[in-house]
Amino acid sequence: MPRMTRVTELYFDFLCPYAWRGVELAAVLKDEGEAFTLRHYSLVEGNHEGNAKELTWRVTEQPLNEGSAYQQGSLRAFLASHAAARQGEAAHWEFTLALFRAHHERKEPLTDGTIHAAAQEAGLNLDAFAQALADEATRRADLRADLDAAREVGVFGTPTFVLPTGEAAYYRFETLTREPAQAREWWTLYRTVLTSEAGIGTIKRAKNRPPHRA
Amino acid sequence: MPRMTRVTELYFDFLCPYAWRGVELAAVLKDEGEAFTLRHYSLVEGNHEGNAKELTWRVTEQPLNEGSAYQQGSLRAFLASHAAARQGEAAHWEFTLALFRAHHERKEPLTDGTIHAAAQEAGLNLDAFAQALADEATRRADLRADLDAAREVGVFGTPTFVLPTGEAAYYRFETLTREPAQAREWWTLYRTVLTSEAGIGTIKRAKNRPPHRA
Repeated sequence: MPRMTRVTELYFDFLCPYAWRGVELAAVLKDEGEAFTLRHYSLVEGNHEGNAKELTWRVTEQPLNEGSAYQQGSLRAFLASHAAARQGEAAHWEFTLALFRAHHERKEPLTDGTIHAAAQEAGLNLDAFAQALADEATRRADLRADLDAAREVGVFGTPTFVLPTGEAAYYRFETLTREPAQAREWWTLYRTVLTSEAGIGTIKRAKNRPPHRA
Repeated sequence: MPRMTRVTELYFDFLCPYAWRGVELAAVLKDEGEAFTLRHYSLVEGNHEGNAKELTWRVTEQPLNEGSAYQQGSLRAFLASHAAARQGEAAHWEFTLALFRAHHERKEPLTDGTIHAAAQEAGLNLDAFAQALADEATRRADLRADLDAAREVGVFGTPTFVLPTGEAAYYRFETLTREPAQAREWWTLYRTVLTSEAGIGTIKRAKNRPPHRA
């Protein structure tokens, strides 16, 4: 039986533009009273995993500096995200949105500079943020716990939502919305698919028929 | 721009239990006035193709006998399906349903015997059916035309529906229905996903959270 949770978990990777849209959608719904928890999933680690049963490459075991070109800054961003989370849930959401917007709306790379600016924009206590980041071993352990939980669910892409009832699926959509009625409609549609008696496993667009980009 | 068609095209492979459920769904909706056309897509050919741009292995170029173990009878079934289609659309649907049910409901292999029994069950003119099957080169050409059309759409799995508006997607669900209200509901849900302004590309269940099988 899937583990029951009170809130919907949202697995994301800062690298992914679809995850960005998912986080923006959840942020709108959160303001409307729906409960979401931010969780991390590493696309780079997932690509290494493939169909193997055992993990042989862990993003949490990579160096922050030399490895950064290959990881495209994702490890740095994940550790910063966990450092931001130390300042409470609201701060974590502000930081996550700020960093996603910097990277995907303004096309800034996931560097220390971009992360610092996002922390500032999110109104974090910058000293406490720096201190939490400096405790790198603990942040790596925080991240490892998220990534192991994602493996248990079988997350393979982002955004993936895990509903309180245990249903879980990747939800890829093209259009960014910050409009409550639209966000509610798209969320209801997704949940209807997951809970339909049809037992829907996949709806996936044919390769040469991409959806219209609104 | 996607090509416009008056009816919904339904791509299927007799090998696939999800395609079976899709054909049963369409058969119910057809009785309710929705228009569908049966089209073929070869999973075995698709597996050979992978991500290659050019087709190097064509199911339509394989021998019927020696190759049959590897193709699991799919070529034989496809050619029979095209032979049945020569007797009109209603006959083609009857044959397709009969062969799907023999293979997936009664677990019979896709052999000449099973195909002959399905033709009988569908009320085909058996002499005309045998004659159409004997014109193997033409049936292979019929099939090739379907498979080339599927490539143009970018079909990668079955069932895939191509809506009259050009939207196309794989629709995988676990539960068989022959109940009109339920069939209508599941079809409306699928079309809502495809036509949503969200621009939904994929909803796909996490690997360790299969949908409930009703």
